Amino acid sequence: MIAVVYSGSKSAFWKISNEGKTVAECTIAGINPTFNDQKHILYLLNKNIVLINHAESIKKIYAFAAGASSAAMQNSLAETLGIFFKNAKIKVKDDLYGASLAACYDHTGIVGILGSGANCAYFDGKTPEKNNFGLGYILGDEGSANHLGRMLLKNYLEDKLPALSRKKLEHKYNVDRPLILERIYKKPGVQNYLSSFLDFYIENRSDKYLEQIIDQAFEKYFTTYLLPTTAKHPDEEVHFVGTVAGNFQDRLRLVAQKHNIKIITITKEPIYNLLNYYSN
Amino acid sequence: MIAVVYSGSKSAFWKISNEGKTVAECTIAGINPTFNDQKHILYLLNKNIVLINHAESIKKIYAFAAGASSAAMQNSLAETLGIFFKNAKIKVKDDLYGASLAACYDHTGIVGILGSGANCAYFDGKTPEKNNFGLGYILGDEGSANHLGRMLLKNYLEDKLPALSRKKLEHKYNVDRPLILERIYKKPGVQNYLSSFLDFYIENRSDKYLEQIIDQAFEKYFTTYLLPTTAKHPDEEVHFVGTVAGNFQDRLRLVAQKHNIKIITITKEPIYNLLNYYSN
Repeated sequence: MIAVVYSGSKSAFWKISNEGKTVAECTIAGINPTFNDQKHILYLLNKNIVLINHAESIKKIYAFAAGASSAAMQNSLAETLGIFFKNAKIKVKDDLYGASLAACYDHTGIVGILGSGANCAYFDGKTPEKNNFGLGYILGDEGSANHLGRMLLKNYLEDKLPALSRKKLEHKYNVDRPLILERIYKKPGVQNYLSSFLDFYIENRSDKYLEQIIDQAFEKYFTTYLLPTTAKHPDEEVHFVGTVAGNFQDRLRLVAQKHNIKIITITKEPIYNLLNYYSN
Repeated sequence: MIAVVYSGSKSAFWKISNEGKTVAECTIAGINPTFNDQKHILYLLNKNIVLINHAESIKKIYAFAAGASSAAMQNSLAETLGIFFKNAKIKVKDDLYGASLAACYDHTGIVGILGSGANCAYFDGKTPEKNNFGLGYILGDEGSANHLGRMLLKNYLEDKLPALSRKKLEHKYNVDRPLILERIYKKPGVQNYLSSFLDFYIENRSDKYLEQIIDQAFEKYFTTYLLPTTAKHPDEEVHFVGTVAGNFQDRLRLVAQKHNIKIITITKEPIYNLLNYYSN
């Protein structure tokens, strides 16, 4: 029995399979060894009945997690998982590596991540090329769900949202100004709070003003991440991975077109491809 | 004996005066009733020997503090100060009000704040007009010291700083990538950390790349804050207050010129004007 895990900073998707057939799956809170200590990760694992039931029979784990880019962080996460999955051989890489495999398998290509965070890399068929991205929601993450959430709240608080969108937002969320500011500046989990507003964009995809925000965010993604990468690797195919890319394929393809870039594949949930990759 | 306090989110400046003459002054850490509880504020007051020495003889306090915009926050801060200054009558307003008084005295005008944070308001000679600004360093604060700090770190981490500026930055600060990210995403006091890099801009004011960053930040300040305010109040004089405005008057005036705006006064430290105002 093997398990494949793909964890962004918000959610970790698990697929457990036996001889090429999925036997169980679950989603738990994100596992990020840079931000979460061993105790917290074990607590998350111990809360999930699917993982508890399969803990002993899993012989191999392929884990891809945001925040696991250094060898130290990969070892630390492997060690933590090893405490829970006592019989498993565990391999840990970062989410960019997982996204690259999911998008390119063994081929070369450029992989863009647009999920709750944002990233991009050239993949040589084995490992993603080192880059200067990955600066998080305060310094970076242009185009991601937390960027979209930040732009939505900013437009709302500056009273720029059209009346109908504003009403809908007020109906769905508690968007009282002091509460928003308290949530952002005094409470933990800011990134998850910001990226949670992705649902609002999905539910209101015909809203022209929201569409404009998305296009602006994607434009920033291209100038910050994708164009510098395609400039370095002009002949490579471009793939995208992540919930934002998956949910707004049409907008993403339009912005790409403006820059004369053709997107080959867009994978909303890389975990399926990863399981496929390791089951074969 | 009276005391005047002007507190941004980073520092609180105190001036104590008797019959029009300054008898003492000090600077302590910022006092922000939205973010700091009573215990923390009393701890800050109790650490300062100047304040301890004058606590009993001060009969009146005029305090202007970031985060004191609601009546509830003003009352809460007045109450806290009252515990320490037992014989004083205390008036609390927010920093925008203090900046307005310092810039306009009893006249009308538009007041821009460019300090560790950013804000802007029309002042009718008595109170600043309500606005939608004040969104803090994650959602707003364009043009402020923390915005400049964020842009500096982003440019550095994305390897965009020219070699000489990069070297100088590395020489002056510990700017190891994992350390910066840890400082920003795992530790408290992010805004102070970001705005602390203002010193680097001041020490390297002839650096053309840093100048470009400043101009971009000021341009954002104008489109976000100043132009919407001057559009509503086209005939009003424009004043600026704050350390960023004070230190980069030349760049600020150039960006203003581009928008056909004449800046009447720039006050780096409003505390002097405020003391002057209340001593006369």
